[in-house]
Amino acid sequence: MMNQELEKYIRSIKNFPKDGIDFKDITTLLKDPKGLLQTGNALYDFAKEIPIDKVVGIESRGFFYGPLLAMKLQAGFVPIRKTGKLPAETVHQTYALEYGSDTIEVHKDAIAPGDKILLHDDLLATGGTARAACDLIEKAGGEIVQISFIIELAFLNAREKFEGYDLRTLIRYDKE
Amino acid sequence: MMNQELEKYIRSIKNFPKDGIDFKDITTLLKDPKGLLQTGNALYDFAKEIPIDKVVGIESRGFFYGPLLAMKLQAGFVPIRKTGKLPAETVHQTYALEYGSDTIEVHKDAIAPGDKILLHDDLLATGGTARAACDLIEKAGGEIVQISFIIELAFLNAREKFEGYDLRTLIRYDKE
Repeated sequence: MMNQELEKYIRSIKNFPKDGIDFKDITTLLKDPKGLLQTGNALYDFAKEIPIDKVVGIESRGFFYGPLLAMKLQAGFVPIRKTGKLPAETVHQTYALEYGSDTIEVHKDAIAPGDKILLHDDLLATGGTARAACDLIEKAGGEIVQISFIIELAFLNAREKFEGYDLRTLIRYDKE
Repeated sequence: MMNQELEKYIRSIKNFPKDGIDFKDITTLLKDPKGLLQTGNALYDFAKEIPIDKVVGIESRGFFYGPLLAMKLQAGFVPIRKTGKLPAETVHQTYALEYGSDTIEVHKDAIAPGDKILLHDDLLATGGTARAACDLIEKAGGEIVQISFIIELAFLNAREKFEGYDLRTLIRYDKE
């Protein structure tokens, strides 16, 4: 299912960041006042019936809608960042990449035990970072009640990694 | 002048990212639903009487309130990013750091000639990045009608770099 109203704002850029990748660019959606507003409303609609304490956004494109969603949901916002950028004590999670590994962090005191968490990022591709973010949030004591993305590259089958979670996406591409 | 209502949400962390720096941490403001909301409302109040086409936010802490402000102002949002992260054709600006230099970019088609721009970031320290962002926006054809920050480290005297601009800050620290 494709949200055609929103999909028209997305720009595809071939061979970025490397050959063979068809990059989905959301900056064309953000710069349009209607695209920006409608996307925010649609992400809010996914979550508005669920009690949520904190929206957690993943650096850095998950910061575009994370605080906006948190404001609309009367929740707080918590950033997950690359290692070394958060100033206070953190919990961290390391995960495998195609080549090597990466580490993400969240402030230890940002998630209280039992906090109901909406995890948000812009794009679900292979799901490696989002999966690590789930593990990180649960390690910190949070309960993930929804995961939302603007775009899902469904042909990469990342949904398999999120069984049992309420995973929502606005724009789904079924073919590469 | 200190906005005491908002200042209480800010956490100071000594010797981050290096010795002698007293880091102003806004994550404690963002995670509090009231702090998040009141800050958004106060930044909106600065700009609500001015016609604004685009809010431009600087990577990555300028992304927290940039899209939220754009939504409230019925404007579009445009990110300024470190070099190499934006997928389409860009305009760039290089500027001096204490040691070496840095380059920021914006999509060439994101700012139309004559666009009225609100530039936003979280913190005004020495003002180097924000000054380069002004130059970049003007090179792209935009007209800067306001610059807003959550925090100003007034003792670093960055305001000198922004004469003639409508520069607004919510929380001002007069002493180190």
